[in-house]
Amino acid sequence: MHIAFLGLGGMGQPMASNLLNAGYEVTVWNRSPEPALKLAEQGATLAASPADIASATVLITILADDVATEQVVLGQGALTALARGAIWINMATVSVAFTEEMERRAHEKGVSYIAAPVLGRVDVAAAGNLNILTAGDAALLDNVQEIFDVLGQKTWRFGDRPAQAATVKLAANFMIASAIEAMGEASALVEAYDVGKGDFLGMLTSTLFAAPAYKNYGAMIAEDRYSPAGFTMKLGLKDVRLAQQAAESKNVPMGIAGVLRDNYLDALAHGDEKLDWAALATVSARRSGQQ
Amino acid sequence: MHIAFLGLGGMGQPMASNLLNAGYEVTVWNRSPEPALKLAEQGATLAASPADIASATVLITILADDVATEQVVLGQGALTALARGAIWINMATVSVAFTEEMERRAHEKGVSYIAAPVLGRVDVAAAGNLNILTAGDAALLDNVQEIFDVLGQKTWRFGDRPAQAATVKLAANFMIASAIEAMGEASALVEAYDVGKGDFLGMLTSTLFAAPAYKNYGAMIAEDRYSPAGFTMKLGLKDVRLAQQAAESKNVPMGIAGVLRDNYLDALAHGDEKLDWAALATVSARRSGQQ
Amino acid sequence: MHIAFLGLGGMGQPMASNLLNAGYEVTVWNRSPEPALKLAEQGATLAASPADIASATVLITILADDVATEQVVLGQGALTALARGAIWINMATVSVAFTEEMERRAHEKGVSYIAAPVLGRVDVAAAGNLNILTAGDAALLDNVQEIFDVLGQKTWRFGDRPAQAATVKLAANFMIASAIEAMGEASALVEAYDVGKGDFLGMLTSTLFAAPAYKNYGAMIAEDRYSPAGFTMKLGLKDVRLAQQAAESKNVPMGIAGVLRDNYLDALAHGDEKLDWAALATVSARRSGQQ
Amino acid sequence: MHIAFLGLGGMGQPMASNLLNAGYEVTVWNRSPEPALKLAEQGATLAASPADIASATVLITILADDVATEQVVLGQGALTALARGAIWINMATVSVAFTEEMERRAHEKGVSYIAAPVLGRVDVAAAGNLNILTAGDAALLDNVQEIFDVLGQKTWRFGDRPAQAATVKLAANFMIASAIEAMGEASALVEAYDVGKGDFLGMLTSTLFAAPAYKNYGAMIAEDRYSPAGFTMKLGLKDVRLAQQAAESKNVPMGIAGVLRDNYLDALAHGDEKLDWAALATVSARRSGQQ
Repeated sequence: MHIAFLGLGGMGQPMASNLLNAGYEVTVWNRSPEPALKLAEQGATLAASPADIASATVLITILADDVATEQVVLGQGALTALARGAIWINMATVSVAFTEEMERRAHEKGVSYIAAPVLGRVDVAAAGNLNILTAGDAALLDNVQEIFDVLGQKTWRFGDRPAQAATVKLAANFMIASAIEAMGEASALVEAYDVGKGDFLGMLTSTLFAAPAYKNYGAMIAEDRYSPAGFTMKLGLKDVRLAQQAAESKNVPMGIAGVLRDNYLDALAHGDEKLDWAALATVSARRSGQQ
Repeated sequence: MHIAFLGLGGMGQPMASNLLNAGYEVTVWNRSPEPALKLAEQGATLAASPADIASATVLITILADDVATEQVVLGQGALTALARGAIWINMATVSVAFTEEMERRAHEKGVSYIAAPVLGRVDVAAAGNLNILTAGDAALLDNVQEIFDVLGQKTWRFGDRPAQAATVKLAANFMIASAIEAMGEASALVEAYDVGKGDFLGMLTSTLFAAPAYKNYGAMIAEDRYSPAGFTMKLGLKDVRLAQQAAESKNVPMGIAGVLRDNYLDALAHGDEKLDWAALATVSARRSGQQ
Repeated sequence: MHIAFLGLGGMGQPMASNLLNAGYEVTVWNRSPEPALKLAEQGATLAASPADIASATVLITILADDVATEQVVLGQGALTALARGAIWINMATVSVAFTEEMERRAHEKGVSYIAAPVLGRVDVAAAGNLNILTAGDAALLDNVQEIFDVLGQKTWRFGDRPAQAATVKLAANFMIASAIEAMGEASALVEAYDVGKGDFLGMLTSTLFAAPAYKNYGAMIAEDRYSPAGFTMKLGLKDVRLAQQAAESKNVPMGIAGVLRDNYLDALAHGDEKLDWAALATVSARRSGQQ
Repeated sequence: MHIAFLGLGGMGQPMASNLLNAGYEVTVWNRSPEPALKLAEQGATLAASPADIASATVLITILADDVATEQVVLGQGALTALARGAIWINMATVSVAFTEEMERRAHEKGVSYIAAPVLGRVDVAAAGNLNILTAGDAALLDNVQEIFDVLGQKTWRFGDRPAQAATVKLAANFMIASAIEAMGEASALVEAYDVGKGDFLGMLTSTLFAAPAYKNYGAMIAEDRYSPAGFTMKLGLKDVRLAQQAAESKNVPMGIAGVLRDNYLDALAHGDEKLDWAALATVSARRSGQQ
């Protein structure tokens, strides 16, 4: 299996590195060359452009968003370069509609498409402990399972249509944003009665809500520590919007999503777009006159 | 220490039993006599009425709500019966305003008031593993800590005003209801793309959301198992309303709380008031045309 | 017909004056004596207290809210003072639950109860041009129609249960608050594109929305003129809350009401409780970073 | 002035007819030929395709939406056919982002772009009584004012950037949808107390809300008359979404818009996409268990 890996950002770089360590032949490309050069030292082949991947049997992309993926894979010729029978695994968080379109475009070229977005941040990617949320043809998934085994601790299958994994990823991010918002609202409530939000969140995240998402973001909220951002407010809003779009095309009302959207906008209007998306909690504080 | 224990429902009965087992002298009363008779077999003294508790130095109440507490403690004379210097520990979930009023009323009688609502359901109470959320005068809390040690695995202190513990308890219930609603909305979204909500929630509650609140309610939602109710829809709505009232008196907007309120009302309008409050998730399914 | 008139605020004073001008025998009382003294010059009899109205056959009250009405009519003895067969017309905006309770309390004393809240502000009251929203026994309403004819331009009947008129009044105030909020949100939107909100609202209120509620509040929003208040933010929030309570007891979700509630709280948290309730529009501007 | 008129639907056909009646030379085209043939009898020139308009100095389009406009004007060559110096007046309701893009595309071709969406339905268009909401270069607007004078009773100018008129139109439609939703929620509230919504809305629309938008939609709601649709639920949702998108790109939270979106989705999930957008009011009734 010869893997082409496009998109060597915070997540992609360590993932490609893990594949090299596992013995795969990997051709890499990135818009800015540094991470590719670093991987070359590890044995990766440098692609001159996204189209310089003709010998790859598997294409993995993990690019910023729909637009970046479209530019690199369609605009700069990666898809066209692939041989018929190749497999494209898109591991980025992209919209459901875009997923459906890319599946179609790949199919037209005789390329199979798998959606495999991940749960986990940079350190988890580096440790090869991602949770990988996949959907696509079952036989195809079997074929590339060995890749997922290198990259993640567990691979989850959600169906044979790539759109299903894309939806699950957006739904998961919606769940995280909802948890942040709920912590923000509840913190504003208890602070209004002079209970420290750290005391409140500390109790909750040791008991009923003793889970990674709550512990991680609860600590950030308790300490008002929103920078450096692991995932920005702007990206948080983007993913809420993608969840809303996916919901809208199936007529699914999502009341909390509407609250999230408005509060992210409120935060962006106050200049907080580069903070970590946990800073959503500051909106409830500000609206209550606590800041 | 002589304890009077009023309110022997699902929670109160095992809690009183634990106190008896720990060697305390306990006088008990309940509106319906059965649980009191059972505790009498264990050595409890039966009070003929809520006012028949004159020798108690500590009064513990865990009654249904504000109204029931007021009727029993004020209306039926429990408070008046207590000697000056006694301590009233209210372990029920009641409103913040009511907490403040009861503190005042107790003070007028020379009785100290502690708020100590709990996290945990019946089985947790029986095992003496409750999390006890307290607020009140620190010296008083020290005095009764031995009681909390019998009833719970951990006692949390949130300040010297009883209203603070009442607020924390309402905020915690708000967090649970928010988690249920988020799971309901996300489940409707993934189901619209033919992903089983059980698959989705199973993944989440094994990873980012591997916490008791999510595992417990996630399983109920996955299986559409809302009966018998551990805590009813009607009580869920009541607690959301109490959180909103507490927030309103301090000018704290809570967007998710408004969503919860409307969706609980939708469920009640459809006859679901006796289901477990996790049935909130059915509203998103119904609104999406999935039921 | 001998009328006792309790509550001589901005609305009550001119209404009582109109009844005197129409030739009625009117006994008046107010917490602060000035307006009563003024009406005495016009021929009104001064009651020494709310209970000093024994000879009245009709009691009209238009007091600030539930609490003020309860204190004056029950607490200070007005209801007890009335003869059996008298009629109590409550023209204030009060809660539906309070209306039902007052109807019951009046009935126990052999007094009939009519709810007759009004639409229109002080100048409209002075001109005798109120719209009077009534509910109660039809024969009783016939009996006092002559009074309504003095006070208003039109009397509307909504049923034989006083709660029905109380509900209609709260629903009407909800409609006004919704219109203000919609104008606030839309103004924030157009201002974000450098369209003056005055130009936008001027166009709308000359065309599709050429109605008194829009013209009046639209002009205030266009000019940021929220003081002096015709009706304060605090009262606006109160009435939204009363509408929510009425809705809650019948399981009616009201999404806009939740938005209104949160935005009124936001405004109060920013110190705007004494502004006119049209200042609700400033919340959308602030949240958008326009102020 | 030689006018090319593309898009002869319910609105476009009578508008083009009015221009012919006023003596203008008009070339017409429509996807389905019937309305064009009818106008030809009135003297219009038939264009063989959207590109067959080379001699026109003014292009007016009023097509269904962004996609239809793009297909006809860009895809089928209308814009390319125009001579440099021509003016394109887009009278459809389209998105703000699309407006900005079309302005750019027109500019590249040496064509000027004016946004001029309208308020008013088919009968108003036929009577030449539209309200025309314009934005664009002031001198250009002066040049085509004579056209607007034929089509409408009044032309409103909102600035020199076409996006401004597009925004105003979306904001106006948001206002209408908000009014419908408020009537729906208030109607559910009063109906829960057995007050007929027709009585309630009849009172309101004779008093505080005596405006065309309320009278028109209030009557439809009162009579549950949602078919035939003047403007469908699906289009209502589309315009709310466009308002949200315009708001989102400027960080403007709009709480009511979120409520509208969810309730339109609820209605579509229940099969009501072809009803008049006033059927939004049925969602509140259904959620309350009244239907």
